[in-house]
Amino acid sequence: MNLPIGVFDSGVGGLTVLRALRAVLPHEGFIYLGDTARLPYGTKSPESVVRYSIQAGDTLVEHQIKCLVIACNTASAVALNALRERYAPLPVVGVVEPGAKAACGASVSGRIAVIATEGTVRGGAYQAAIHAIRPEARVVAQACALFVALAEEGWIEGPLVEGIVRRYLEPIFATDIEAHPDCLLLGCTHFPVLKPVMETVLGSSVAIVDSAETTARRVRELLEQQGLTSSASQPGPIRLLATDGTSRFARVGSGFFGERIDEAGVELVDL
Amino acid sequence: MNLPIGVFDSGVGGLTVLRALRAVLPHEGFIYLGDTARLPYGTKSPESVVRYSIQAGDTLVEHQIKCLVIACNTASAVALNALRERYAPLPVVGVVEPGAKAACGASVSGRIAVIATEGTVRGGAYQAAIHAIRPEARVVAQACALFVALAEEGWIEGPLVEGIVRRYLEPIFATDIEAHPDCLLLGCTHFPVLKPVMETVLGSSVAIVDSAETTARRVRELLEQQGLTSSASQPGPIRLLATDGTSRFARVGSGFFGERIDEAGVELVDL
Repeated sequence: MNLPIGVFDSGVGGLTVLRALRAVLPHEGFIYLGDTARLPYGTKSPESVVRYSIQAGDTLVEHQIKCLVIACNTASAVALNALRERYAPLPVVGVVEPGAKAACGASVSGRIAVIATEGTVRGGAYQAAIHAIRPEARVVAQACALFVALAEEGWIEGPLVEGIVRRYLEPIFATDIEAHPDCLLLGCTHFPVLKPVMETVLGSSVAIVDSAETTARRVRELLEQQGLTSSASQPGPIRLLATDGTSRFARVGSGFFGERIDEAGVELVDL
Repeated sequence: MNLPIGVFDSGVGGLTVLRALRAVLPHEGFIYLGDTARLPYGTKSPESVVRYSIQAGDTLVEHQIKCLVIACNTASAVALNALRERYAPLPVVGVVEPGAKAACGASVSGRIAVIATEGTVRGGAYQAAIHAIRPEARVVAQACALFVALAEEGWIEGPLVEGIVRRYLEPIFATDIEAHPDCLLLGCTHFPVLKPVMETVLGSSVAIVDSAETTARRVRELLEQQGLTSSASQPGPIRLLATDGTSRFARVGSGFFGERIDEAGVELVDL
């Protein structure tokens, strides 16, 4: 079925999810909506996040999509059930469940570290999702506020960035290998661009699990199960929508998407 | 006149302005309103910022204040005139004009650097305010996105923070002393907590002007001119209002205010 896949995020961070989706589903079309006018969602009340998510979801559904991906961690944690009910039988996939499942699969010891924004850590959605799968897991969650700014600024390598990454991660991984987590779950759409630095800092004894990649694989699995994969043999088209600041969307978003986004290609929409 | 002074900001950064106000006006009472539910203002449309500022201003004016201070840079740049008209003859003071005036006074060469958030830099309010006073001034403006995160995280000293400050400031001050700016204007309420590190990085050849301090002196001057200063001989009371997240307000705000804020002392208000 050649309808596009809808992807929704509060801003540009979700472009890491779009990038991962395109890598595993190269022949699909995508329509991405970043609610840049109202970001960040992490500091908003759950009621507001549900309301905004429904407005964004309705807009994407009006564009005739075959699957809705909630790339925003806050919206995934708070609004997923409301969106699933509203759009059933349309498949709706969030980033929290696939990320938690992948971390549970990757960890041998059951000691899992989650890094995310302050709002996501406080909300506890990843911790709950991990414990639902592995009740005995020991989960350490750490907010890494500067990572968002680093990622948006495009500072993703070099000694300074390594120093910042070290400062956040070392307290978690300071104990010897027998006691520290063996898996680090990236619970924020901004963080995948910092994965290479994290690998340098942590070495090979820690598996880094990226919600974006695991969510993309979950979407592919769902489409295959439901016979919804595209029959196209060419790369699918990508439409980008934003609720504010198309220029910043293009500039900052290019880093997350991994290739240059032209401002003229970003459509401004009102929800 | 013993009515309190109202102070409005989009969040907790304006507590650096409250701190400066209290230092120069120790016998005044203050009522501070942080619109934490809707921050950041920097990415919102001017119409929204004016609307939010009026809602916040109305709330403070209902509390019987004798002067309104707009501690938020974005609101100062966009909503000051609307607020002055609405509340006349109440004195309304923003942070942009006093900051620009102080920088023009502090610079000998007329080469002035302004650092602020991306929104403030793009809006050009400081650049315009400086040129209104010194048309020949050469103004360099630089957005320092990580400074906000550093300040909120409480990372305000040490080699890592020095490295980040150096990375932003060195391109501006890399030329020899004859050519580089001799004045650095801190155009964001979050930045004063990083002033000691900036002094270390820049040395004594650059005057660092802090909008918070100069705004506080401007308020004192106005109150004296209009005979509105308090007759109290004791430190005045301080009330703190926030539109969301009183716990985060207390925790993060303590760093900006320079002393511990008790969460129980922060009142939640709806605008």
